[in-house]
Amino acid sequence: MKSFMGEDFLLGSQTAQTLFDSYAKDLPVFDYHNHLSARDIFERRRYDNIAQLWLGFDHYKWRAMRCLGIDERYITGNAPDKDKFLMWAATVEKIPGNPLYHWTHLELQRYFGISQPLTSDNAHDVWTRCNEMLSRPGYDAMSLLERCKVAALCTTDEPFDTLEWHIKLREDPSCKIKVLPAYRPDRFISIESDGFPEAIALLSDRLGMRIETLDDLKAALQGALDHFVSVGCILADHGFGGYQYGRGGDAGAAFAAALSGRRPSEEQIFQYKGELQRFLASEYCKRGMAMQMHIGAQRDNNRPMLDRLGPNCGCDSVGSSTDPALIGAYLNDLVSAGTLPNTVLYCLNPCDNAMLSTMAANFACAPVRGKVQFGSAWWFSDHVRGIQNQLNELMETGLISTFIGMLTDSRCLTSFCRHEYFRRILCDKLGDIMERGEYPNDLERMGRIVRDICYHNAVSFMGLH
Amino acid sequence: MKSFMGEDFLLGSQTAQTLFDSYAKDLPVFDYHNHLSARDIFERRRYDNIAQLWLGFDHYKWRAMRCLGIDERYITGNAPDKDKFLMWAATVEKIPGNPLYHWTHLELQRYFGISQPLTSDNAHDVWTRCNEMLSRPGYDAMSLLERCKVAALCTTDEPFDTLEWHIKLREDPSCKIKVLPAYRPDRFISIESDGFPEAIALLSDRLGMRIETLDDLKAALQGALDHFVSVGCILADHGFGGYQYGRGGDAGAAFAAALSGRRPSEEQIFQYKGELQRFLASEYCKRGMAMQMHIGAQRDNNRPMLDRLGPNCGCDSVGSSTDPALIGAYLNDLVSAGTLPNTVLYCLNPCDNAMLSTMAANFACAPVRGKVQFGSAWWFSDHVRGIQNQLNELMETGLISTFIGMLTDSRCLTSFCRHEYFRRILCDKLGDIMERGEYPNDLERMGRIVRDICYHNAVSFMGLH
Amino acid sequence: MKSFMGEDFLLGSQTAQTLFDSYAKDLPVFDYHNHLSARDIFERRRYDNIAQLWLGFDHYKWRAMRCLGIDERYITGNAPDKDKFLMWAATVEKIPGNPLYHWTHLELQRYFGISQPLTSDNAHDVWTRCNEMLSRPGYDAMSLLERCKVAALCTTDEPFDTLEWHIKLREDPSCKIKVLPAYRPDRFISIESDGFPEAIALLSDRLGMRIETLDDLKAALQGALDHFVSVGCILADHGFGGYQYGRGGDAGAAFAAALSGRRPSEEQIFQYKGELQRFLASEYCKRGMAMQMHIGAQRDNNRPMLDRLGPNCGCDSVGSSTDPALIGAYLNDLVSAGTLPNTVLYCLNPCDNAMLSTMAANFACAPVRGKVQFGSAWWFSDHVRGIQNQLNELMETGLISTFIGMLTDSRCLTSFCRHEYFRRILCDKLGDIMERGEYPNDLERMGRIVRDICYHNAVSFMGLH
Repeated sequence: MKSFMGEDFLLGSQTAQTLFDSYAKDLPVFDYHNHLSARDIFERRRYDNIAQLWLGFDHYKWRAMRCLGIDERYITGNAPDKDKFLMWAATVEKIPGNPLYHWTHLELQRYFGISQPLTSDNAHDVWTRCNEMLSRPGYDAMSLLERCKVAALCTTDEPFDTLEWHIKLREDPSCKIKVLPAYRPDRFISIESDGFPEAIALLSDRLGMRIETLDDLKAALQGALDHFVSVGCILADHGFGGYQYGRGGDAGAAFAAALSGRRPSEEQIFQYKGELQRFLASEYCKRGMAMQMHIGAQRDNNRPMLDRLGPNCGCDSVGSSTDPALIGAYLNDLVSAGTLPNTVLYCLNPCDNAMLSTMAANFACAPVRGKVQFGSAWWFSDHVRGIQNQLNELMETGLISTFIGMLTDSRCLTSFCRHEYFRRILCDKLGDIMERGEYPNDLERMGRIVRDICYHNAVSFMGLH
Repeated sequence: MKSFMGEDFLLGSQTAQTLFDSYAKDLPVFDYHNHLSARDIFERRRYDNIAQLWLGFDHYKWRAMRCLGIDERYITGNAPDKDKFLMWAATVEKIPGNPLYHWTHLELQRYFGISQPLTSDNAHDVWTRCNEMLSRPGYDAMSLLERCKVAALCTTDEPFDTLEWHIKLREDPSCKIKVLPAYRPDRFISIESDGFPEAIALLSDRLGMRIETLDDLKAALQGALDHFVSVGCILADHGFGGYQYGRGGDAGAAFAAALSGRRPSEEQIFQYKGELQRFLASEYCKRGMAMQMHIGAQRDNNRPMLDRLGPNCGCDSVGSSTDPALIGAYLNDLVSAGTLPNTVLYCLNPCDNAMLSTMAANFACAPVRGKVQFGSAWWFSDHVRGIQNQLNELMETGLISTFIGMLTDSRCLTSFCRHEYFRRILCDKLGDIMERGEYPNDLERMGRIVRDICYHNAVSFMGLH
Repeated sequence: MKSFMGEDFLLGSQTAQTLFDSYAKDLPVFDYHNHLSARDIFERRRYDNIAQLWLGFDHYKWRAMRCLGIDERYITGNAPDKDKFLMWAATVEKIPGNPLYHWTHLELQRYFGISQPLTSDNAHDVWTRCNEMLSRPGYDAMSLLERCKVAALCTTDEPFDTLEWHIKLREDPSCKIKVLPAYRPDRFISIESDGFPEAIALLSDRLGMRIETLDDLKAALQGALDHFVSVGCILADHGFGGYQYGRGGDAGAAFAAALSGRRPSEEQIFQYKGELQRFLASEYCKRGMAMQMHIGAQRDNNRPMLDRLGPNCGCDSVGSSTDPALIGAYLNDLVSAGTLPNTVLYCLNPCDNAMLSTMAANFACAPVRGKVQFGSAWWFSDHVRGIQNQLNELMETGLISTFIGMLTDSRCLTSFCRHEYFRRILCDKLGDIMERGEYPNDLERMGRIVRDICYHNAVSFMGLH
């Protein structure tokens, strides 16, 4: 029996251990997609206690606690922070095999030097020790990032964001980490959403320009994008529920209808979304930016919880399978028009793994290594088996060596252990292939692949400089 | 090499063996979903021979025999029982890796003390030995259940069933097993079915009340449900092919049309089914009952076989993927109305595992542990890998500790070994996690999780008392 | 650590090794589906160099090279053959875990006696050695097949093919291999395709008969089929993107419309395709032929590449999930009409594995062993995990012992190592089952299953004689 989450955690062979120790462990981190607050980083935010850090906005944990039948008072309610933490500890011992179990203990080990398993028995002690440490130097937001060797990260931002805190970070000589904004214009694509006119108004106010036609909107989105780029943005992000894409039609008329509060027809929605997606991709392509596509979440399934807590409260789930005809049509239109940016396709429903991985490879083209990427295991798939499945799919139907690797997708500053988690799983997989005699015992050659996946590919693909 | 299906069957480590031996093996069984005959149990039915017991109504076995090219005469035809058994034995040796292989030998070991593998070579001997034993005391229907420590079970019954045999069993002081009916009103939801008017007529006759309107039907279904509850019913069951659910519309008009032999429109069918499902769930909720949803079978694919043998003859298959928008809408409507009963979602198409597991967790709420369950591996998924996949999914995207565990779903009295089968796979999985250092070496803590999953969670979730 | 791709390659236990060595390794090969050129075989074609053999038409390799960012000049362009090979070698070291990695090295070992891993370091040497060997006797097309013990193979041919080279091969006394044509009438089913009228014209010319009505077309297809059968054809093949099938309607009118250049409606397309599929299946059934269905590819996704290189250039991908209602309807119509031929269903999207495997078993019937087959892992699934998944699915929800096993589906004469690849994976799986004590330690009994799957089942199922 292996010791509890020791040095060989997730590493099943000596070769895997060597790959991890010699090639992966000490690389810097480029976390190109997360939901961190640039302000918290700039202000070197501190946390009063571990509950504030861990439970304040982590809907993964909330969801687990609800499944255990814990009252909402101890989750998002007004119970004291310590009580919330005790409830979380009682949950942890009940979730063997869940990534939250692994992450919790990696974070206790790496940030707090606590190597015992968290249970209801020792929860009080862990609470006290973590909080004591959080009060020390080296536990502010910036220091937590530095501790994990974060070289650069991309937050997620709306086109109308001023990027005030990103700008301050750029101008802060003591900040060694590149904290870059990423451009996420979802609200301008979701023409059917009730919030569409409000989003237009926000962008109009932000830029001080009228947005009355589709051309106005395009100009505004370009203006916002230029601002983003001036602050270092190298990456966009698009989120979709069921993926929608259309050709033709009069997107301008659909825009006018939506702006005046009328809902366009289904066909018009698809056409408008197609037009916007083509337009934005071409703008990214012009600027040498990369584009992410997060496809397939079915959000806000529980209306009473949405009304009470708002979105991102832990009531989202894996949506239906994505239509490969639509994804294929979009990418084909871009490649045909010469406007295909470097693109990352993220898969939420694991039954789309094969479809998306093979789709990505259709658009490979020189000189980019992995022009269209089958992205890292996302959200509900971000666990050992999910990461293994994504890696297997890439190895079998894509090309593993050009993979740009992991991101945290997290709202929490201590989530950077997920890079270690990924690197261990990656090294275990590649080491296993060598152990089985399916690749020669050539550590240096395999080590280069490891290093590329863990850091260098993303730097090159995203054009980080 | 391990010995053939010995004590360590399916257990890959010493920790797994200890978990099974110390925590799982001796627990009682609550088989909350099967297709047994209450009459057979009450009457202590006996079997002339092993073919009658095994091959009389087991369409899993029929299907395997047909795949081997065996003539229907030896499957459902008029060949002598012994010849049928010999054909089955010849099939068994050809199905390594199939759950029927495992089940057959578990049953030979546990019920008949036969530990050799069944082959065409020893089929005659096994036939003789089994039949000799079946003639002894302890081999009637009730005794077979007692031998497997069955504490309670739920059969599957139509609303117009009188439950005569369930009532007799309740009144039988020598019956130590709770044999409860489960309420399965599918025929009243399937408004598009040719048999709909007949079902209405049967219910009308049974209750001695006219059913001419939708309100009449609701009243009748309530009356039938009250009768079920008076006989101990704690559980309902709904079966679906492609899942259908709608809102709004005039369900009463659709009902009237169907009753008079006219087929409602697609939209009306969805709306009627939505109305009935909401109504029934609220009735279950009121009575503290749990609700099962079996989603995604495509039944009766082979018309000549259906004409010859009727339904459940072994010509059913895995249907298409389920639409998460519809399932989500139903559960959301219930939670919004405050009428969501404890619910179990069973998945037939394994590519829906992630979708259904994450969907279930959206509706978790205190104080119930696992309010909406991602149910046990069902039918075509009820094999080692299928059970492992369901457990993995639960661990990764749900919450394993609140899982209500296994059921046989069987028509056969010797199928209760499937609980042992499940418990072995469960202990192997949880033991493996400990062996890998992903959970502390704390047998007592993990053992509690094992015991809860194998028995206590179901008792609590279903309100068995 | 195992040695690099040695004798125990893919074999995880001694039992697996014994099964492979004693029962699988030396069996002949019946490659019942590939895309070889009968002319090349008849003419004993020779290859100037290894690039010509390996890279001339293998779009799997092209795709991998593009993913690595290699310029098209070195892939399908006018770079010298040696440069192309060097680029391929540089790709190989970057694709651990990909079947191309395994296949490349199996081919180097089996055909060229080279056991070192191919890398950019030794690429020049390998180039020289392979080319030297290709110039020796025993490296012409026919000899390469004989070296792999190919007893028979089926190519893929259009109804208007003259089969000139197949006929010559039949009449060639020095040819010991049965080289049979397979009948692939896709172009006559794809009524919506721009190329439909041209296909009709080709068939009309070929047979010297007018094709003006659907009845004419049926007669022509029968005539062509009779010619195929006279040349030894025992097998048809149908390829589908999204599977389409309909009943009723006026297929003759749809045909007339399409022939005159008008596009039939969606409904007419489904109906026409249904009519043609039923007709063709009944013709196969009459002649005792088997029928393959390749379902679910989404082809030619990248328009600029299609324009430049034509179809089959490496821009195809896994399509959406197949509708089980349509597949079920087709097979049901055939079984009801008594016109169901022996049928093989191939799955491209792995999330359809369970659906197609269970669908196949619905139509099992005596006396054929495995009347409808869930076919071997296809195209993007033809890798270790994909083959394991297909075998697992068959074991769990189908019947493994009647499986007709592997085919290469290849355009390349050295791809026959894929049979060895498959046999190793099969023996590993069945050996593992024995090692785990899930099947008795009875090598002879398991060995018969192995032999049947590797060779005899296909011979019997296809009626090879």
